[in-house]
Amino acid sequence: MSATRQIVYQIFPERFAIGQPHTSASKLAQPAYQRPGNFTKNWDERPATTPEQQANPGQGFYGGDLQGVIDKLDYLQALGVTTLYFTPIFEAPSNHKYDAVDFFRIDPMFGDEATLRRLIAELKARGMGLILDAVLNHVNHGHPWFLAAQRGEQPYRDWFGFDAQGRHQCWWGHEYLAELNLENEALQQVLFKGRDSFLAHYLDMGIQGWRFDTAQDLGLKTARRIRAAIAPRYPQAELLGELMSYAGGWIDGTGYTGMMNYYFREAMLAWLAGDIGHRQANQAMRDYYEGYGHQGALNSWLMLSSHDTMRLRTALPDVRLRQLAMAAQFTLPGIPLVYYGEENGMEGGNDPDCRRPMVWDESGWERSMRDFVQQLVALRQSLPALQHGRLTMLGDRQDGNALIYLRHTDVPGEVALVALNLGDQPLRQLVFVPYPHLYNSVPLQDRLDDSREPIRMGGGCVWVEAPARGAALYTPFEPHERFRFYKERNLVP
Amino acid sequence: MSATRQIVYQIFPERFAIGQPHTSASKLAQPAYQRPGNFTKNWDERPATTPEQQANPGQGFYGGDLQGVIDKLDYLQALGVTTLYFTPIFEAPSNHKYDAVDFFRIDPMFGDEATLRRLIAELKARGMGLILDAVLNHVNHGHPWFLAAQRGEQPYRDWFGFDAQGRHQCWWGHEYLAELNLENEALQQVLFKGRDSFLAHYLDMGIQGWRFDTAQDLGLKTARRIRAAIAPRYPQAELLGELMSYAGGWIDGTGYTGMMNYYFREAMLAWLAGDIGHRQANQAMRDYYEGYGHQGALNSWLMLSSHDTMRLRTALPDVRLRQLAMAAQFTLPGIPLVYYGEENGMEGGNDPDCRRPMVWDESGWERSMRDFVQQLVALRQSLPALQHGRLTMLGDRQDGNALIYLRHTDVPGEVALVALNLGDQPLRQLVFVPYPHLYNSVPLQDRLDDSREPIRMGGGCVWVEAPARGAALYTPFEPHERFRFYKERNLVP
Repeated sequence: MSATRQIVYQIFPERFAIGQPHTSASKLAQPAYQRPGNFTKNWDERPATTPEQQANPGQGFYGGDLQGVIDKLDYLQALGVTTLYFTPIFEAPSNHKYDAVDFFRIDPMFGDEATLRRLIAELKARGMGLILDAVLNHVNHGHPWFLAAQRGEQPYRDWFGFDAQGRHQCWWGHEYLAELNLENEALQQVLFKGRDSFLAHYLDMGIQGWRFDTAQDLGLKTARRIRAAIAPRYPQAELLGELMSYAGGWIDGTGYTGMMNYYFREAMLAWLAGDIGHRQANQAMRDYYEGYGHQGALNSWLMLSSHDTMRLRTALPDVRLRQLAMAAQFTLPGIPLVYYGEENGMEGGNDPDCRRPMVWDESGWERSMRDFVQQLVALRQSLPALQHGRLTMLGDRQDGNALIYLRHTDVPGEVALVALNLGDQPLRQLVFVPYPHLYNSVPLQDRLDDSREPIRMGGGCVWVEAPARGAALYTPFEPHERFRFYKERNLVP
Repeated sequence: MSATRQIVYQIFPERFAIGQPHTSASKLAQPAYQRPGNFTKNWDERPATTPEQQANPGQGFYGGDLQGVIDKLDYLQALGVTTLYFTPIFEAPSNHKYDAVDFFRIDPMFGDEATLRRLIAELKARGMGLILDAVLNHVNHGHPWFLAAQRGEQPYRDWFGFDAQGRHQCWWGHEYLAELNLENEALQQVLFKGRDSFLAHYLDMGIQGWRFDTAQDLGLKTARRIRAAIAPRYPQAELLGELMSYAGGWIDGTGYTGMMNYYFREAMLAWLAGDIGHRQANQAMRDYYEGYGHQGALNSWLMLSSHDTMRLRTALPDVRLRQLAMAAQFTLPGIPLVYYGEENGMEGGNDPDCRRPMVWDESGWERSMRDFVQQLVALRQSLPALQHGRLTMLGDRQDGNALIYLRHTDVPGEVALVALNLGDQPLRQLVFVPYPHLYNSVPLQDRLDDSREPIRMGGGCVWVEAPARGAALYTPFEPHERFRFYKERNLVP
């Protein structure tokens, strides 16, 4: 799977599907769910509905697991997904598992190593891949390493940070998330350097790569150590960093291969919400493309929502605005990452509401969104310009409230012109296009709406059109029967 | 003194202070002041008040001198000044001395070489430096070289330019300013190439560098010759060119080390006066930073006024606008250059009114401006980002009438976000910040007003706030006791 043809689907395993032969009742009857402090829910209930639940949202369980994902692979393949990304699946007391007590054990709620191996095999058989989530910055304060450290036992004492009063460093001040001392060599061996390190253990099992939680806390220094340890053994492994801000400079070939592109998300949603104008929105897309670099941008995940954010439909009830957002996600440089259920217009507010169980009842699906996603998947997989073309942002040079940009490969004519119009009137703007292979009089067809009249290039410029609150995606076509604009001889880059 | 920690103070020596033990009366009784055509003034009089005086403003004298500066060094040091820049001090008939008759003699009105040496020693004892003003393009038509040239004597005849009618080239057509022929090798020896050249003579005395008058007339060719002659012997010497326009390309490492940044001044004042909008103002700052280059911009003088311009208070009576201007001067890339008295809100129209004597009566000082300058000096000296950080202009991407920019060094977290709001309402704008080390949720404190609530980073963006017609300067801080956003391991660039 070429990275640039990937369409990633993010799954929060506790909430995607309960695998055969279990029902909700039989699954939640297992002892792990019955621990003190936990609460369980039926699949169609909301997360954390009482004040007590809202105080401990991480302890609410529905029973989703790896077998559930295996059962739904047909669904995912039909959607066009190429790669699954799971939030953590290693043993941890919470439903989100960002607080591990054992990196080397699949949480029994989700299955075991045999289930994971079966899932990987099933994915491979379909030409699909899996990316797992590594939380290297901190562990649960119940992790045996930390308990030993608290008792003063070596080497564990040195794997954490303690102040003069003996209090441990903890993530954002949360006591239960004890920060690891990643400068410790023995710990680095266990996590990523050793022959059977945490990262190597699962790469050996056949996963496609890792997503790294809280990249800013790991620092570029740790990312470089990871890359140096992993790349020689697993040259194809993707190493993606989570940075919920601008990630320029973090993808320089020495550490992460790509980043979660939250900067794209924030800019896109801020523009759609009216918090920034179209000039800044266009500029922000140029920012990430230039700052992450062409390959860095292509390798990064273009996200619109995740387990850490409000769902798209709740942020943007107007389906037209959501379609603009998803059109950007599938046509700007990067790998689209679809948070489970977004393809069906699932609703959900901020965490924990964005972690509602997947809606499998098709009557609850938003068909217009689903159809649009299918159309975007098909377009992206058919157009090399969208997969790996360079980006030229154009929308900040014109007055319409629109994102306008060109994607273009080195092959003359492999080009797409995208216009995302937020205005409540149809867009018609003359845009100058500094690309040398859209010759005068070349016609361009909107591939999102074949019924629309083509537009036609002028001398380096074109009157770009897009529907009110709608997207257009233009590609050139040959209008003559016995004449070619793109002759063999000008297909040389 | 690292160039980037400098705060330069420009003194017009005739107007700064009369040195002990003289009074105005005893000083002006000296023969030099009594030459025909000169007129003298009491310290609190305005320059050129009669039509006759206005016709010859260069011949009005107050009696300021080098001893006067020595007497006021405590004042300058307390203000935080690190470097003095004097307009010319070499023998010349005018008060401004841009019309030298002897480059190798301190004008007797100002003192003698012993006074200059004493001043330099006193400065060194305080860790301060001195930059002198070299006028290489022209001399007074009474200069012995020119008199000899007029008589046809060599080598002097070839040191000037004469036309077929024997009329000399003169600066801007002013007869009394005879232009030197800087292509002449012997003249180059005398001015800057020789062991005891004009420039070397004073560098040997311990000055820190030279400011070169009318850089456009010298041309880059002369600047390169000067650099080639001076840099090997005086590698630390600063060589600053005066160009009252955009100076891109003039600081390429072969000639001047920096320029007087009049482009900054013009853009800043034009914006504050409403002659240009905030987009063009932001762009102009980007212009100079990109065109001068990072190091070239850092080495250049950020000026708001000089002996050649109206004083700031007269151009901008509203103290809030002047504070915006000075906030820019102390936080954009470059060395702030304060024209004497601006720190106390001195008034003065165009030349010669901008050359009024320094106000030493504290009851005539504008305390709010003085306090603000002191605050800016302290902030600049405490924040490496302001001293040598890179510049990212952001204000042209948002709609508020504001300059907004980031200064950031290569050390993660060494960053300052500046917002200068010209609007008459408080500013609140969402701004995307393409800098990779302002992580999601990092809080930022306004260092110009500690009483304001911190603002907080979102995902690569922040709602920037600034008071109406006021400045804010944000830096990140650590909000948690046992958690650091900026860990040792992510301080790797």
